[in-house]
Amino acid sequence: MNHVQQMLATHPRQSGTDPSALAECIQECFACAQACTSCADACLGEQAHVEHLVRCIRLNLDCADVCDATGRVLSRQTEADPGVIRAQLQSCAVACKACGDECARHAEGMGMEHCRVCAEACRRCEEACTRLLRAA
Amino acid sequence: MNHVQQMLATHPRQSGTDPSALAECIQECFACAQACTSCADACLGEQAHVEHLVRCIRLNLDCADVCDATGRVLSRQTEADPGVIRAQLQSCAVACKACGDECARHAEGMGMEHCRVCAEACRRCEEACTRLLRAA
Amino acid sequence: MNHVQQMLATHPRQSGTDPSALAECIQECFACAQACTSCADACLGEQAHVEHLVRCIRLNLDCADVCDATGRVLSRQTEADPGVIRAQLQSCAVACKACGDECARHAEGMGMEHCRVCAEACRRCEEACTRLLRAA
Amino acid sequence: MNHVQQMLATHPRQSGTDPSALAECIQECFACAQACTSCADACLGEQAHVEHLVRCIRLNLDCADVCDATGRVLSRQTEADPGVIRAQLQSCAVACKACGDECARHAEGMGMEHCRVCAEACRRCEEACTRLLRAA
Repeated sequence: MNHVQQMLATHPRQSGTDPSALAECIQECFACAQACTSCADACLGEQAHVEHLVRCIRLNLDCADVCDATGRVLSRQTEADPGVIRAQLQSCAVACKACGDECARHAEGMGMEHCRVCAEACRRCEEACTRLLRAA
Repeated sequence: MNHVQQMLATHPRQSGTDPSALAECIQECFACAQACTSCADACLGEQAHVEHLVRCIRLNLDCADVCDATGRVLSRQTEADPGVIRAQLQSCAVACKACGDECARHAEGMGMEHCRVCAEACRRCEEACTRLLRAA
Repeated sequence: MNHVQQMLATHPRQSGTDPSALAECIQECFACAQACTSCADACLGEQAHVEHLVRCIRLNLDCADVCDATGRVLSRQTEADPGVIRAQLQSCAVACKACGDECARHAEGMGMEHCRVCAEACRRCEEACTRLLRAA
Repeated sequence: MNHVQQMLATHPRQSGTDPSALAECIQECFACAQACTSCADACLGEQAHVEHLVRCIRLNLDCADVCDATGRVLSRQTEADPGVIRAQLQSCAVACKACGDECARHAEGMGMEHCRVCAEACRRCEEACTRLLRAA
């Protein structure tokens, strides 16, 4: 068990949500927040290319903030409000889709490897949010 | 002009959004994030009453995180993605409504003054998000 | 009284800290987090100039994150740990000084008005942190 | 390679810092932010015991915010300011020590398993920050 799973397993209250789907989504939110923070910075460091990466940096920053909030909300089990969680999961899936699509374009078109790694993190997070929305 | 309005007025790119509605919503998001962080802590400090305030603390923490992310996303004007902004505004309105309702209950039922101040911050932020969603 | 002062005034526990110096520092942290988030984005939108603003964007993003964390830590009164608060205030003063200096250079050298507004927010936050460190 | 290491390996700029020590510290900051967010919530859900866990919840919330900011600052390689990074690493080590000590007390005294898991995350993060400070 990783630390997310251990924290859920030792929590005094269990939500109805499938713990393995929940643990996966929490992990993907934190991983995507990190990847997007790092990709915004890597794009900013791409000297000659930075002007072509402005939209990518913008979406990376938004996606990092949205994933961070979502990972925190999902990490809480006590007295959860399903409507709050649902709305934030939907927003997270939208932000990850927009950012993942933009990163994937630069991975293909410009061979940006950090965008390729980040696009994968966005896809995994988007899918984990969608799975949790269906399960909830 | 306050600092939010000054930052918007000096920004090289103008989104189509009404700048005064946008500035108001940014301010309310940051104000609500602060009030909710403070109210969670004030509830935690209500020694004999803390067990009755568990749901309030939980919603305060969620609302602070969601408002923080929303205030950051809205503070950006460059290459904005309307779908990302819209989904986060919707989530923010939901979190503010849930938290504001819970705080209002404790303001009335238990005379909790910090909950009354926080409920007002939540209402103002919820309304600012709803206005921006209508305008966008 | 603004909302920060109202939240402090209605809190069940009072720290030893001077409430007006504390309220001012909390406000400046949230204001600086907003200004730096907005200035990073405004710099990113300065099409021909973005390559000269890379260091400014980087410092804006760091300063926004550090101010955000500091504003949250200071908003809490219950069972405060003076060492934790002190270390975070010191880090916040360092981040605000670095970012404020960089923004001031672009306000003067390139006439960047958003950098001028942001440099003022950084200076006010740095001073508020320094005052609180002296008072604590 | 995990995603943090991949993001560092594909970044166009390399800081002088040892990449494996840096990657480890970034990971521990995000892991500790998650564990502390979850532990604050688990403590809040410990119905009969919550009044004994007030200081633990407070420190968990502070530590989550400080680790989050530190993880973001460290994820950036472009135009890094060593003084800003150093001050935030020092603050993070202080917050992790305070929170880890408090969690360890409840793990031993009250058999709180979530506090035991969280104390380990705090220790690992504190050590990773200290190692990076020595290396920098």
